Amino acid sequence: MHSFGELVTKFSTYFNVRHFPLRPSTLYDPCDYFLGLGGKRIRPVMCLMGNELFGEIIPDAYNVATAVELFHNFTLIHDDIMDKAPLRRGMLTVHTKYDEPTALLSGDVMMIQAYEYLNKIKTNCIHRIITLFNRTASQVCEGQQLDMDFEKKEFVDLDGYLEMIGLKTSVLMAASLQMGAILGGAGESNAKHLYDFGLNLGIAFQVQDDYLDAFGDPEKFGKQVGGDIVSNKKTFLMIHALEVASASQKEELQSLISQNAEDKVERVLSIYKSCGVDEWARSLKEKYITEAFQHLEDIAVLSVRKKPLTELTSFLVQRDF
Amino acid sequence: MHSFGELVTKFSTYFNVRHFPLRPSTLYDPCDYFLGLGGKRIRPVMCLMGNELFGEIIPDAYNVATAVELFHNFTLIHDDIMDKAPLRRGMLTVHTKYDEPTALLSGDVMMIQAYEYLNKIKTNCIHRIITLFNRTASQVCEGQQLDMDFEKKEFVDLDGYLEMIGLKTSVLMAASLQMGAILGGAGESNAKHLYDFGLNLGIAFQVQDDYLDAFGDPEKFGKQVGGDIVSNKKTFLMIHALEVASASQKEELQSLISQNAEDKVERVLSIYKSCGVDEWARSLKEKYITEAFQHLEDIAVLSVRKKPLTELTSFLVQRDF
Repeated sequence: MHSFGELVTKFSTYFNVRHFPLRPSTLYDPCDYFLGLGGKRIRPVMCLMGNELFGEIIPDAYNVATAVELFHNFTLIHDDIMDKAPLRRGMLTVHTKYDEPTALLSGDVMMIQAYEYLNKIKTNCIHRIITLFNRTASQVCEGQQLDMDFEKKEFVDLDGYLEMIGLKTSVLMAASLQMGAILGGAGESNAKHLYDFGLNLGIAFQVQDDYLDAFGDPEKFGKQVGGDIVSNKKTFLMIHALEVASASQKEELQSLISQNAEDKVERVLSIYKSCGVDEWARSLKEKYITEAFQHLEDIAVLSVRKKPLTELTSFLVQRDF
Repeated sequence: MHSFGELVTKFSTYFNVRHFPLRPSTLYDPCDYFLGLGGKRIRPVMCLMGNELFGEIIPDAYNVATAVELFHNFTLIHDDIMDKAPLRRGMLTVHTKYDEPTALLSGDVMMIQAYEYLNKIKTNCIHRIITLFNRTASQVCEGQQLDMDFEKKEFVDLDGYLEMIGLKTSVLMAASLQMGAILGGAGESNAKHLYDFGLNLGIAFQVQDDYLDAFGDPEKFGKQVGGDIVSNKKTFLMIHALEVASASQKEELQSLISQNAEDKVERVLSIYKSCGVDEWARSLKEKYITEAFQHLEDIAVLSVRKKPLTELTSFLVQRDF
């Protein structure tokens, strides 16, 4: 059995090869460039962990893990085009370094390559894996579409936001774990609990992300605090604030959103605090972590095998901020 | 056995259903809209024909044919974004009717849906089919990338153009036939000859397309004659003309390309004719049709079974223009 950290190293070494032909370089070099930007490789490692929960890691798990990571990178390349993002991991995005048509096609060909790794699956569960992969892939697209739809809406409720985050962020984590479990021969109930563990963990992670953007320590967080507030992003915090604020606070929030004053971040944060949004977000995250752990507990394998998943949880969501 | 026309009707009826969920409608309605624009459904019908060449059409052939048509439409949606095309089949393209992010995501989800149909294959050749599908899908992306690269180049040679056209247009036709054949239990040699038939047919079709744009009867052709010349598209004709023209003709061509004079089409056509480009294109097309028929002849099945493929050829390439 491997620790979470060991699996990250193992997968990164395995994945760190060229996944594409050399020619035409105008198409494949951008793919190679983007994969070279790195990333935490969380999702593929979750696939390996889901697999190791039920026995030794089998070669097929590496193929599925690779497919997951390629798919994830395909979504990032296309999301960056849609969001007109100039940078990713501190480096130029594909459409910025090359151009939009190249980024579009590089993404397309990366998704095809993901399916090529799925096609390497030797075990007889290939149908089940591809079915789950396809459903998840469509859901991730649905989440991205809802996210874009929300940008145009004045009001989004918490349930709608939760659905979007679940689709855009959580289902791929949940499915990565579950695909590993299926390859490991997990029974239906165990596979389902593992999926739900991933789903809840993904939402807790996103709540934390939204929280840290507003209340995080800038040095630890590594991003400018208040970025979401400046860009009027609908977050867990803003959605809840608009739901619980008094009439006058709501009015102030709406005027801050429409105007972009210099002291915007400071004033929004002050409303957040007086509405108790920070406390609410902490307990919301806690609720999802508790739910995740309940599902982890319900998986019928020896507790010791679950240790890497507990480590993963600590890595993704700190319980003491 | 069915005629080419009967198969077109059969497939169109089969395919004319909603392939996507209803929600979120902002993502899936654009997919449905684009498929509703119709099209000749040539490629999926080629899959059915490849299958029927070796026996009765099996249900899996419809799944693969549907995957092929969805994949083809995915490439059209993304190509339209890259080409900034306002219209497709006389109707608004997806990025024009909706917006670019929506078109990008609709294309993505259409490709995923193509793989969902492949995943329905029940016969044990699923690995072989997906391998061929993936290779072909990557090649189509490569062809589109080369096409975009060529737009930026001053000079493209005939071999380069042939490679690009082969990838962008022919391989999907060839693979559609071959996937049908594989599902029909064709032996390796027969499957290969069918593939090469499709490859040559696809190139003959493109030579004809380039020829008709310059020399076609505007009424029969349905497009404005000379469109490729106006937009400085590199075509079989222009590439050959630049290769065989005299120094002064070449100079005139290059100045016409760079300037966009009012009598551009007329003057380019006059150079084409005096260089014998029209005659050359006719014989080039003939060469590829002959080659295609040679491969068709080499397929070891009763001649009568090949009749629909001969009808297809007549539909795609007229031998008497």
